[in-house]
Parts: sequence; C-alpha cells; structure tokens
Amino acid sequence: MVGSQDERPRIVADSTRPTPTTGADDVIAALVASTRAALDQARRPLRDVVAVGCSAPGPLDHERGIVHVAPNIHGFENVPLAARLSSGLDGVPVFVDRDTVIAAIGEGTVGAARGVRDFVYVTVSTGVGGAIVADGRIVRGATNTAGEIGHWPVALDGPRCGCGSFGCVEAFAGGRNLAERYGSRDAGDVFRAADANDARARALVGELESAMEALGVGLVNVLNPSLIVVGGGIAEHEPTHVLEPMRRGARERAFAVASKAVRIVPAALGADVGMIGAVVAARQRVAGRDPLAV
Amino acid sequence: MVGSQDERPRIVADSTRPTPTTGADDVIAALVASTRAALDQARRPLRDVVAVGCSAPGPLDHERGIVHVAPNIHGFENVPLAARLSSGLDGVPVFVDRDTVIAAIGEGTVGAARGVRDFVYVTVSTGVGGAIVADGRIVRGATNTAGEIGHWPVALDGPRCGCGSFGCVEAFAGGRNLAERYGSRDAGDVFRAADANDARARALVGELESAMEALGVGLVNVLNPSLIVVGGGIAEHEPTHVLEPMRRGARERAFAVASKAVRIVPAALGADVGMIGAVVAARQRVAGRDPLAV
Repeated sequence: MVGSQDERPRIVADSTRPTPTTGADDVIAALVASTRAALDQARRPLRDVVAVGCSAPGPLDHERGIVHVAPNIHGFENVPLAARLSSGLDGVPVFVDRDTVIAAIGEGTVGAARGVRDFVYVTVSTGVGGAIVADGRIVRGATNTAGEIGHWPVALDGPRCGCGSFGCVEAFAGGRNLAERYGSRDAGDVFRAADANDARARALVGELESAMEALGVGLVNVLNPSLIVVGGGIAEHEPTHVLEPMRRGARERAFAVASKAVRIVPAALGADVGMIGAVVAARQRVAGRDPLAV
Repeated sequence: MVGSQDERPRIVADSTRPTPTTGADDVIAALVASTRAALDQARRPLRDVVAVGCSAPGPLDHERGIVHVAPNIHGFENVPLAARLSSGLDGVPVFVDRDTVIAAIGEGTVGAARGVRDFVYVTVSTGVGGAIVADGRIVRGATNTAGEIGHWPVALDGPRCGCGSFGCVEAFAGGRNLAERYGSRDAGDVFRAADANDARARALVGELESAMEALGVGLVNVLNPSLIVVGGGIAEHEPTHVLEPMRRGARERAFAVASKAVRIVPAALGADVGMIGAVVAARQRVAGRDPLAV
C-alpha cells in the first residue's frame, strides 16, 4: 500500500485467509503468510517495507503491541502480537492498534469523519466496539483500552455476553450473540427470519434496536460528539435496524443541545477500513506523531 | 475565598439560601444576594473581587456562560447566567461551568484525583451527573455538554427520567426520581424504609444498586479511567448502595485489564466541592489556562 501523507492509501495487493480457531500461534502464522503473499502479489521484497500496521481485536495495549484478550478469537490472551509479527517478518517494525481505533484513524483522516474533532466510531459486526475521539485526540484511558462501548450495559439483567458480563450492547446487537440467542449459524439468518415474520426473531431484532437506541442516547449524552460514524457488517447490511434506532434515540431521548449537534452516518471506508486505517496509523507512528492529530 | 495557585482555597465566608422555585430571575437574584452577603461577612468590597466562579447545573455552555436547561430547577432554560450574574455584581467577570465539571476541577487539583490524568467524577445526589477527564483534559464534546453520565440508559425500558428519557442511571439512582417512585418526600425516606425491610423500598434500592453496578461496568469499559471519584449526598450517606455496587461491577463484569487499573473512591471535598472547584476554575480562567491542566 502506498500513498502520500494526506491522501487515502491505495491498496496495491491483498491476501486474506480465514482466522484459525486453533490458537494464537496459528493466527500469527496466518497473518505472516498473508503479509508475505500480498508482497509477492505486489512484487515487492520485504526489505522495502518501512513499517507494518496491524488492526487487531482488543482490549490491547497499542504502545507495547500486546493483545490482552480477544473474546471472539479462541486462545488469544496476552499475546505480544507486534513483537511476534515483527519476528515473523524479518524484524520489520509492526504497529498494532485496536481494530476500532484503526478504523477511527482511517475514518478520521480519509473517511467519513475527516477533520472532525469530536466523534465516536462505532462498529456493529460480530461484536460491537468503538473508539472515541475528543478534541482531535483518541481517548486511550489509563491502560489503552478506552472505547469498548459495546460493553456498556443497557439492561439491568439481560443476556450473557462473550465478555463474561451481561446486558451489554453487544449481548443484544453483536452478530455472534444474536445468532447464538436465536440458535442459527449467523446473524443474517435472524434478520431474514424477522423479515419473514418469525416472532422470536422479531423479538430479538426488536431488542437489538432498543439496545442501539440506548447506545445512541448514551453516546450523545455522555460524549457529546458532533459525529457518530457507524461501520461493521451488520450496520452496513441492516441500517434500518442499527443506524435508524441510534438516530431515533439521539433525536427523541438525548439532551436537546447535544442532540442537535450530532449527525449519525455510515462509515465511508467499508471493508477496507482496517487496511486503510492501519497504513495511516503506521505512517503516523513512524513519523512519531500522535495518531489522528486532526 | 483566597489562597495561592496550588493550594486548596480557604473558605473565608459563605452565604446560602434555598433555590427559588419561581423562575430564573429569582434564582439569579438569590445568587447575587448570597454573593453580596458573603462579601459583607468577609468585610471585603465587591471592587476587590477579581473574578467570580459559579458552579451551575447543566447541560450548559461554559464558554458563553449559558445554561441550556436545568431539569431540576423550575424555569431554567437558555439562561445567560454568567452575563446576568456579572451585571448583578457591577460587572465583575463571572465564569460559569457545570457543577460536575467544577467538582472534577476541584477534585482533580486539590482533592481525591489530584494529579490523576484519567478519571471520572460521578455525583449521585438529586440527580446523577459526572465529568470526564482524559489525559489531563476535561472531555467537553462538540457543544460542551459531555459527561452527562447519569443519562446513559441502563435499561431497555424502565422508569421515566426528569430529562424526558427513560431507563437512565438517574431514573433509578437520582434522589428526586427515587423519592418520586416511592412516593416519599426525599430519598432518605426510601433508604430508611428499605433498612426497615419495606419490600417496595428494598426493590427500588435494589434497582438503584443494579444501575450503579451497570454504571461502574460501563465507565470502566468505555473510558478506562484509573480513578472514579464518587461524590454527592446519596453517595456520601449511602456508600454501600452506591460505591460498593460500582466496585462490584468494575471488579466482576468489566474487562480485566481495565478493571485492575481502576480505583473507585469517595470524593474528598464533600459539600465544599462547588465552592472550592469554582475558585480553582475561576483562577485558571483568569490566568488564561485550560482548566485542569494536570
């Protein structure tokens, strides 16, 4: 991937493979294999690579490149991902950041939130996550895990969540939890069943909408962003069940002054957000700049 | 109130009176009267006053000194509080900020969060509010209303809240809402009835605890603070119903890495937090400094 500082990076090659379910070693081997395959495709040697950006699930520590735990990847706990990828890639520097932070960096520099100083990136996909940008800076928190907005409880009891808690936004709206609650293979089945008027699917989708509405209210009241950018597969395919309830919540239930100040829009970078954001983030970190100094 | 830049301001006089329920004009007149009475008590003329700091309920715009709406004060909507107080005080500059931001400035400079760069101030009192400090700076948001953590919904349905929404933390845990739901004059009655084993009071206090637990989980996951400082009358008088559930939520349900990084402690400045924080904030603003540059 190449491109100058301020333009959207161009994707010159890509290589994807399924995430192994057999533990961290295999996941890392697959990442290294994909990186090398993409370089072969682009006919560029590894020694030409200045840095590698890596978007990973979290919570993780972007400064040390350690993934603390990735609830949706089997066996991924306290993995020094940056160091292990780097050693698999002949020592090229690797910068790891949380997938949602990478997405916020991408959307905030060359996507839907370009130039916006106060925004929240939300992803609704297998899980529900996010990243918070306040006054042009990513809110990192004490141990670099801030922004896990999918794990704010929106119900006093409510279904268990993959994170070990219950009643989280993700417990209702994450694709994995939704499919598990319905008993189907993936979340798409639940939406299709709801469209076909299946009562149980409709109830689950109704709860998902209520959870997204609550998330919209909460983000606007607590963080007062001028923009909420919503990405992820479920948001992309089911905007009426995801973006619309968030907008309704913000409009009808949040403080008026904050509600009037916010727009809730789809992400602009789609499925490429991880690749694009990772390149922008790696560039910024090579340059010694704070990622996303908008 | 006097004192040097880095020490806790000394309270040399005070004058309080009940908040009028007859509209904004009367509230402003009462504030002016209290200020003048305190000066008389301290035997200092108004012309000696460099600046006045004012802690007000919000959401409000601290830059322009306008209170957008104060749900718990009758008739307080879009009030240019700083300008009106200043003209009632012979033109002395008046700096208004949200009560919870003022409290965070007080606790963050001379109180329980002194020197802490990532913390959340929470108040549980008539209402539930807060202020967020990320990397040493107050998170203001797009229109300066960020931090209204009492109005994150923690139930998909749930009781109405004074803010017009429902299911908010404040709907369960704010003193006004709690007393209204029970049908008593104040929240103290509900806690006393619960202690005397009244079933309805126990159920309401149980819901309050669940809401505070959810708030603890949510704040830790979303903001990853190293400290949560909890003040307000209800928190002070009922710590087992307020701080304990927050700690339990953070410990048992939040992401481990964030959970281990946080302490949840009572506020240090007690009922004086508004006066102390307002003086610190006014000093910082007179000096042209960002409030709370810790």
